[in-house]
Amino acid sequence: MNLILISAAELQNADTVVLQDRRSEHIVNVLRCRLGDEVRVGQIDGPLGTGRIVEIAAGKAARPARIVLQVTIKEPPPPAPGIDLILALPRPIMLKRVLSQAATLGVERIFLIKANRVEKSFFDTSLLQEENYRTYLLQGLEQAVATLVPAVQVYKRFRPFMEDVLPTILPDGGLGLLAHPIADPLFQVVRAAPAAGRLLLAVGPEGGWVDFEIDKFKELGFKLFSLGPRILRVDTAVTALISQLWLLRQIFSEFSP
Amino acid sequence: MNLILISAAELQNADTVVLQDRRSEHIVNVLRCRLGDEVRVGQIDGPLGTGRIVEIAAGKAARPARIVLQVTIKEPPPPAPGIDLILALPRPIMLKRVLSQAATLGVERIFLIKANRVEKSFFDTSLLQEENYRTYLLQGLEQAVATLVPAVQVYKRFRPFMEDVLPTILPDGGLGLLAHPIADPLFQVVRAAPAAGRLLLAVGPEGGWVDFEIDKFKELGFKLFSLGPRILRVDTAVTALISQLWLLRQIFSEFSP
Repeated sequence: MNLILISAAELQNADTVVLQDRRSEHIVNVLRCRLGDEVRVGQIDGPLGTGRIVEIAAGKAARPARIVLQVTIKEPPPPAPGIDLILALPRPIMLKRVLSQAATLGVERIFLIKANRVEKSFFDTSLLQEENYRTYLLQGLEQAVATLVPAVQVYKRFRPFMEDVLPTILPDGGLGLLAHPIADPLFQVVRAAPAAGRLLLAVGPEGGWVDFEIDKFKELGFKLFSLGPRILRVDTAVTALISQLWLLRQIFSEFSP
Repeated sequence: MNLILISAAELQNADTVVLQDRRSEHIVNVLRCRLGDEVRVGQIDGPLGTGRIVEIAAGKAARPARIVLQVTIKEPPPPAPGIDLILALPRPIMLKRVLSQAATLGVERIFLIKANRVEKSFFDTSLLQEENYRTYLLQGLEQAVATLVPAVQVYKRFRPFMEDVLPTILPDGGLGLLAHPIADPLFQVVRAAPAAGRLLLAVGPEGGWVDFEIDKFKELGFKLFSLGPRILRVDTAVTALISQLWLLRQIFSEFSP
């Protein structure tokens, strides 16, 4: 936890917040802060800043420590890289990791969808309820020192998502990208269709997309690219691809007129 | 497990191998193969190929299934990207993940070292014994469909590593790279010192390197670069950086004369 995340609703008199949960426990037991110390604070979906500890009381038994912070939060959060993610729903333990990492890496929208090689039972997990998956998104932001919570949407059927939803979210002037074993490298694909706008990255299930699914993505204008000969686990692939897209963004913004 | 890894010592008459462990269990219970089916086989630190199932017997109670494969392994494994990793030793649960991912991503040498913000107790874990950490390296290769096992070396003291060991492993004509919050972006650093040779990437502990450590790396010719404003967990950082270096390698090999 590199950042104490608070919600706007927790702010009293615009600059005071009372913590008595895992956050205050973290401040006392991990950061080992004392009265008068400052911690990094961010407002969910809002600015970053600092909080000075103006009251502190140790926890007892099951009761967490209690901390009152006086906060100054006016700095902009790190800029979002303009990347959205379509993800064939992985098993819950993998989903937790990917949600956290996607939040850390600044993904703004996450579409969890069905695919032929996604087990139907994966959709039964209680993790798909917002109060549950939100924990992992916030953990990713606390790690990154960022505040923008990705929006998550779940689609239990592939074809309705592709036909009814995807056309409405396809980036205008942006680029849809799909990893495929037999295709050109990413930098050639992105160079051939430079995206000033948003990037929408589709990552398949373990075992890959089936041909029908790939054809559907292509029909909607997605470009295929190859990550190389190594087969990456879903969480590794998501981190690898998003960080490569970060880099390509930097390079193209440097070289574009 | 996208690949059945075997050792040279397991090969009988140059083309037969008997499996009766988690690999044969995987072939029977996850891949659901039958007599005559083919599976992907790789020889540790050797070539890739296929194995045809010529005998199969189901497991019973604690006894794993038994499978005899007739193998043809002559294809080269995926090329190594020429990247070595210096890693401030993370806690064991994180180390397992990083070892697996580093093997997946083709890292050839991993130096696990002490740093000021590495807890001494991390070096007490039995995971640092080869028979234990090797499991995670092999899992990474089984995922990637690769065969080259990274070499792991452990250094319990920072200064002797930096002064006595690092000068001997610094890439000749290559480049040492160190992530730092205040520095130029990676692509500018790598462009300014294009590395035809090997890349040696140093990744710090949670909380970062201390100034003394950074100065030591700089003295030895390491270039500092910034990953941007987001703070990444160690495993995310390793994957992000190595995949960015993959990409830069591709781009520079394309554009270099």
